[in-house]
Amino acid sequence: MDPATNAHALTDDVGFLLSRASAVFVRATNAVLASYGLRARPYSLLLMACSAPAGVSQRDLAETLALDPSQVVSLVDELAASALVERRPSETDRRAKLVVATEAGRALCAEVVPVVEGAAAAQLADLSATEQLILRELLTRLMARGPGASPQ
Amino acid sequence: MDPATNAHALTDDVGFLLSRASAVFVRATNAVLASYGLRARPYSLLLMACSAPAGVSQRDLAETLALDPSQVVSLVDELAASALVERRPSETDRRAKLVVATEAGRALCAEVVPVVEGAAAAQLADLSATEQLILRELLTRLMARGPGASPQ
Repeated sequence: MDPATNAHALTDDVGFLLSRASAVFVRATNAVLASYGLRARPYSLLLMACSAPAGVSQRDLAETLALDPSQVVSLVDELAASALVERRPSETDRRAKLVVATEAGRALCAEVVPVVEGAAAAQLADLSATEQLILRELLTRLMARGPGASPQ
Repeated sequence: MDPATNAHALTDDVGFLLSRASAVFVRATNAVLASYGLRARPYSLLLMACSAPAGVSQRDLAETLALDPSQVVSLVDELAASALVERRPSETDRRAKLVVATEAGRALCAEVVPVVEGAAAAQLADLSATEQLILRELLTRLMARGPGASPQ
């Protein structure tokens, strides 16, 4: 196989670029979250719980965060051990448990969100406001295909 | 904290969007790679080895793929066990080892690259050719800040 063609394939591969750009953001986010005892994944889960006052199901968490159910369970366990979220029975389905942010979880969200947004803004500093809007729009449309979208 | 503000924060967060869009691509890529006994990460590493006829250092692999050195070692071990790559001493630095694709590795690359590109094209089908170019350009510029870029 022609080496030049191959080299082209990797840097031109949107999946590879997404994975690299995502890694850059995760590292920057983890760097600012470390002093709060958080990392990017539990932070995203906490943020979802904070934005749903009535609680959010583990199924919705798995879907939105593109995680396996078992990963969600262990992240919820981790946040529950720090008393940032708690599991409560759903009022509409007693067998289902909802994840609800505690008072401490909400306080941490309020403190950490601006810090994480500041870190993201620093990563995006080379892009104009219009380019940032375009990037958000294109990523949102890619996401809309969802993990279940046919690969062929 | 205002729930509406918080809900906004998550879907507007470029880091979150990147991580979700990346997950969508990784799943689609893994789906087509499964029948070749590969997953997205070892595939990217194999592709880098295939595109560097003289071999590539584990340090360069870690840097380009945004992986820890220990993750690179275990991926190279995995590909070497399948005889797709091998470690050879560098000609310029005898202490350094280079990762080189074997004949079988190159043959697999030639077969798999078009399949992965087809899967990526399907994921990108909702974006026009111009939008795909813009997305690649914006992601490349984000990546250029690199994992070491200051988060503040």
